Amino acid sequence: MQIARVVGTVVATQKHATFEGAKLLLVQPLTLDDRPRGTALLAVDALGAGVHERVLIVMEGRAAGEALGRKLAPVDAAVVGIIDAVDVIA
Amino acid sequence: MQIARVVGTVVATQKHATFEGAKLLLVQPLTLDDRPRGTALLAVDALGAGVHERVLIVMEGRAAGEALGRKLAPVDAAVVGIIDAVDVIA
Amino acid sequence: MQIARVVGTVVATQKHATFEGAKLLLVQPLTLDDRPRGTALLAVDALGAGVHERVLIVMEGRAAGEALGRKLAPVDAAVVGIIDAVDVIA
Amino acid sequence: MQIARVVGTVVATQKHATFEGAKLLLVQPLTLDDRPRGTALLAVDALGAGVHERVLIVMEGRAAGEALGRKLAPVDAAVVGIIDAVDVIA
Amino acid sequence: MQIARVVGTVVATQKHATFEGAKLLLVQPLTLDDRPRGTALLAVDALGAGVHERVLIVMEGRAAGEALGRKLAPVDAAVVGIIDAVDVIA
Repeated sequence: MQIARVVGTVVATQKHATFEGAKLLLVQPLTLDDRPRGTALLAVDALGAGVHERVLIVMEGRAAGEALGRKLAPVDAAVVGIIDAVDVIA
Repeated sequence: MQIARVVGTVVATQKHATFEGAKLLLVQPLTLDDRPRGTALLAVDALGAGVHERVLIVMEGRAAGEALGRKLAPVDAAVVGIIDAVDVIA
Repeated sequence: MQIARVVGTVVATQKHATFEGAKLLLVQPLTLDDRPRGTALLAVDALGAGVHERVLIVMEGRAAGEALGRKLAPVDAAVVGIIDAVDVIA
Repeated sequence: MQIARVVGTVVATQKHATFEGAKLLLVQPLTLDDRPRGTALLAVDALGAGVHERVLIVMEGRAAGEALGRKLAPVDAAVVGIIDAVDVIA
Repeated sequence: MQIARVVGTVVATQKHATFEGAKLLLVQPLTLDDRPRGTALLAVDALGAGVHERVLIVMEGRAAGEALGRKLAPVDAAVVGIIDAVDVIA
């Protein structure tokens, strides 16, 4: 899983039927010191994460479908947790 | 999922049987400010996306097969949405 | 899926039983203007692609197994089409 | 599988139900001479690995779910071994 | 699949139960002209490959589990062939 920040949303009126009602969040992967890392991507959200929140994302199709509770949804990334704290031990 | 733009098509007369009738689009992944990112790839399309449209692509085999409605199709990327708007919240 | 060119073959006498009789092609991924991109890899071939042909490859285990018609084969890439034309629309 | 070192933990009170009780470790992939390689990621732990230990991580959804003993958990990385020794043969 | 060379082994006394008895090889991916490419990784071996041998590795969970003959093993890479010759055709 990766640490990311919610940075926006995407509107797609025409989409695969199993996406209906699912929220699509634009999430930016972060380094451990909270800087952007790589490109933002889209993840389905089943937890109600808000913009600017730090979240835990899973990037794999089977796992993302399970997170959404729709096994057959054509998804490859999902928000699976809202992060309270990251503890790096020196 | 990733944001991409449809930039062309591919013709392949000899192909795996489960591809018959499926449209193969050449899609170019984009950054959030709409610039090309990495290499263009081929995605199956079940939504009727047109050239120059911004689309949502899923890049994973199981998910792409579901998007096409053919679980057993040997595919690894699919167009799953046509994007109306991307909202990046500062 | 990716565009690649067949650039060779690999001989492996000792191999996993489900590979018996399957052809292993060395394929080089290409950019849209036909230059090599990244490292060549090995893909199973169920279409009879020849050396120097441009092919469509799928890179994912489940999909590659389906392409070979052997669901349980331990493969992660397969040739799924022989490309006649790539049309990039400006 | 990859060699990594446990470098911390993550607290996420709101998370997908199948994560309940699972430990989330922050792991840093390593090179063969024990230097950090790429970005740290989160892996579920079913072995009780401690901070600073060198571990074996698997990075794939199906495999990570199996490691956790919860097939349906939306995870993409797991600790599957605690490393005693790495022998590189010159 | 990728071409790699066996460069060592890993000892992990505490590991996931389905790994018991499986050999874990440290393998270094190679370029076509036999130079190291990227980072070495760990692959399960069901063929009895020896150190310094050139092998064919599959990098995907489902495929690696099949190679090991243990569908439920949490693995993401496996040795599936021992390479006799690589023929690059100019």
